Amino acid sequence: MPRVTEEYRAARRQEILAAAGELFARNGFHATSMADIISASGMSAGAVYRYFRSKDELIGAVAENVLQNADGAFARLLEREATPAPVEALRTILEGVLDGVLRNNELGIDLTRIVLQVWAEAGRNSELGQRVDDAYRRLRGHHAEVARRWQAAGNLPADADPEQVGAAMLGLAQGFLIQNLLVSDTSRLGYVAGVEALLGGADRGTPKAVTAAKDAPA
Amino acid sequence: MPRVTEEYRAARRQEILAAAGELFARNGFHATSMADIISASGMSAGAVYRYFRSKDELIGAVAENVLQNADGAFARLLEREATPAPVEALRTILEGVLDGVLRNNELGIDLTRIVLQVWAEAGRNSELGQRVDDAYRRLRGHHAEVARRWQAAGNLPADADPEQVGAAMLGLAQGFLIQNLLVSDTSRLGYVAGVEALLGGADRGTPKAVTAAKDAPA
Repeated sequence: MPRVTEEYRAARRQEILAAAGELFARNGFHATSMADIISASGMSAGAVYRYFRSKDELIGAVAENVLQNADGAFARLLEREATPAPVEALRTILEGVLDGVLRNNELGIDLTRIVLQVWAEAGRNSELGQRVDDAYRRLRGHHAEVARRWQAAGNLPADADPEQVGAAMLGLAQGFLIQNLLVSDTSRLGYVAGVEALLGGADRGTPKAVTAAKDAPA
Repeated sequence: MPRVTEEYRAARRQEILAAAGELFARNGFHATSMADIISASGMSAGAVYRYFRSKDELIGAVAENVLQNADGAFARLLEREATPAPVEALRTILEGVLDGVLRNNELGIDLTRIVLQVWAEAGRNSELGQRVDDAYRRLRGHHAEVARRWQAAGNLPADADPEQVGAAMLGLAQGFLIQNLLVSDTSRLGYVAGVEALLGGADRGTPKAVTAAKDAPA
């Protein structure tokens, strides 16, 4: 297939996703019909159905888009820093994924509201549920990699399970997302400061602690 | 009003809530109609509407039920222990609220799935949004009280803001709830162990650390 055609197809697909994403974020999955999406996309029904056979497939694609952004932010952090602190990983995911990527993503819409819809729907739609399960285990794995390096630097107990620590780190990010959408006076900086204090203040959980913590008794 | 009538009314109200809660947990808010709830309750439409004027009112009441259970578990912890550790507070809320109260509550249904529905709906329904906002600020306050006592015992930096630490603690609980429903190999014990390691292992974040941490330099 010639390259221009692939690019054309990718662009059309993004246009449909943008139209669907905006409607999902505003009205939720249930109050959005394929007819609404087709109308908002400005394409014919036949054209839209060539890309997405159903609303469920569109929901899956929008969810996938969000999760790929999270993957990308993490990959960049792990490349940039040999031993990012857990707090730094949280800061990266909150800044990059939630604040930056989700609000200013290529779809041009606030996708954080869609995450709440995806969670609610994933509990009742087994295909979406499987996709979310896979994606979160992948994301938890990225957090576990941070924990593994943090442990190798002597900053976590030697017998700690990095995958379990990764689950806790992922939980902190998910908790922020909920509070950011549903609790009126939530601030990203305040939340990160709270995590930092909980993890031991300025003398633990931040990069400058690496050396000090190494010398501390295990 | 004579007492027996109040009790009768409370029992009828609980019956309707149980019918609605079961349908919400199984099918979600959107796929559940007042007609479904009336039919499942075994009462007349007139009787049901005397207790709840709309589906939104029922959604609010089911959500309130969940959140009151969380309040109760926390009040008992704060009465029982003068200085519960953050990890202990998390263990209490996960055991008591999620595993115990939500699954074996007086409605007799698994309410954790409803929480995902409540979150999705709260972003789009301003009355429910306000209720969730109030409830989470109250719950965050309980966590902040744990943080305040933990700080007074010398286990948190003196300049830490207990309300911010409380937000992080609440986030850990919310994150577990999501993973417990959506990530297939999540275990409560593993998650708590991960948090404990992240907070500094056996020598921090647990009750026995109180004395040792007091003697450590600030």
